[in-house]
Amino acid sequence: MKYHLTQFRVRYSETDQMRVVYHGNYAQYFEVGRVEWLRNKGVSYKWMEENNIMLPVVSLSINYKKSAFYDDQLTLKTILKKQSTVKIEFDYELYNEQQELLTTGNSILVFVNMKTGKPIAPPQYILDLLNKIE
Amino acid sequence: MKYHLTQFRVRYSETDQMRVVYHGNYAQYFEVGRVEWLRNKGVSYKWMEENNIMLPVVSLSINYKKSAFYDDQLTLKTILKKQSTVKIEFDYELYNEQQELLTTGNSILVFVNMKTGKPIAPPQYILDLLNKIE
Amino acid sequence: MKYHLTQFRVRYSETDQMRVVYHGNYAQYFEVGRVEWLRNKGVSYKWMEENNIMLPVVSLSINYKKSAFYDDQLTLKTILKKQSTVKIEFDYELYNEQQELLTTGNSILVFVNMKTGKPIAPPQYILDLLNKIE
Amino acid sequence: MKYHLTQFRVRYSETDQMRVVYHGNYAQYFEVGRVEWLRNKGVSYKWMEENNIMLPVVSLSINYKKSAFYDDQLTLKTILKKQSTVKIEFDYELYNEQQELLTTGNSILVFVNMKTGKPIAPPQYILDLLNKIE
Repeated sequence: MKYHLTQFRVRYSETDQMRVVYHGNYAQYFEVGRVEWLRNKGVSYKWMEENNIMLPVVSLSINYKKSAFYDDQLTLKTILKKQSTVKIEFDYELYNEQQELLTTGNSILVFVNMKTGKPIAPPQYILDLLNKIE
Repeated sequence: MKYHLTQFRVRYSETDQMRVVYHGNYAQYFEVGRVEWLRNKGVSYKWMEENNIMLPVVSLSINYKKSAFYDDQLTLKTILKKQSTVKIEFDYELYNEQQELLTTGNSILVFVNMKTGKPIAPPQYILDLLNKIE
Repeated sequence: MKYHLTQFRVRYSETDQMRVVYHGNYAQYFEVGRVEWLRNKGVSYKWMEENNIMLPVVSLSINYKKSAFYDDQLTLKTILKKQSTVKIEFDYELYNEQQELLTTGNSILVFVNMKTGKPIAPPQYILDLLNKIE
Repeated sequence: MKYHLTQFRVRYSETDQMRVVYHGNYAQYFEVGRVEWLRNKGVSYKWMEENNIMLPVVSLSINYKKSAFYDDQLTLKTILKKQSTVKIEFDYELYNEQQELLTTGNSILVFVNMKTGKPIAPPQYILDLLNKIE
């Protein structure tokens, strides 16, 4: 399966005075989504960093269609779009409890060696986990 | 002049454990940039909201080229890209003290009547201020 | 029962360059704790605000004993300490998966009428819910 | 002089749906205050971390008296309360443009060796800078 669903509730601290989720906070939600996507594949992002591989974001785009509100129980669909040797690209779709599509997003991340700061291909067993068919 | 320069310093709270500015926090920086762009034109965004016009973001994109670090004194160039009756679009370029281009971004905002929640054309005097030649 | 346990995982965005949870972010955690404490009592804080009662924080204190780290699964114990007609006071204890006590906190909140901005006693049925014996 | 004044403007991202600064965000403001207090003494906190000394917060308390609002130009007074060999304690007073006292705070920080994770006395020249009479 190429996607993973994550659920979480909007915190008060995530709202702004428009009485909706602050538009910049969706970046945090997407990050939670891809970390859980990875965990679901058997890959802990924490473990990756402990093994000197990090995944910085090189591009992010977000389209805001409808607002998310305080205390909403949201469902984030994280979809693997594309994966090459050094890059990984995700699409995101965020839904509220009424199954309304609130926000879509996309981000590209690069595998980077934390010691050199240079892009690297991740170890084969990580690639195997990412590409395994469920 | 179609652009405005804003300077600010990276706060500790804005970093993450990669020891750089958290990628989601650039949305806040861009917001500061366009609010100061507006102020420089003679338009207070706070005043706009008090007069029932808000400017929610409908799309945001960010490209991360180089990292910003704690305590860096950054310069944000906010550029009016396009403005129609109900929309306003900005480009952003973020530089560090060495004049390196760290991040570029784009966001589109829509003028919305806070009472109806519907897009509206802003009052003529706001449009006049936004379009005045300096 | 005077306390409620809430679990959540530390997000990447919540860390800072000390490689621990940023000390200011515990305020968000405590807020999640007391909202879930209320929900467990049958009171939705969202519903309270929709009915013009808000609960702003008037004091907050936090003691930091051990660090919380990225991806830690934390357990927050939210304890009702004291409740008078217009105030409500909570203690907080935050534990990691090894049952180590990381942080303790306390906050006092006041019931405020959102229209007048003045402290008020909440409606009797809210007080009844808050005080019911389980 | 034992205190330092810092000015900054409230960002939109710092508000919540009560239409005031989110109560957890004052921790960030106080941090900006003490970093500028240090800088004013000739000590760069960034430099300290580069030299393996960090200053984690071990306790924080905040009293909220009046709200700070979006776009307010705030003045933070950071006051050295006490300094021992390994600890440093600050009081904070936050004022708006009408000179109203909005918030008071206190935090205690400990000098820690980043390599060992243990409290240490900072080098003498840092102590000299911190204690110099102006």
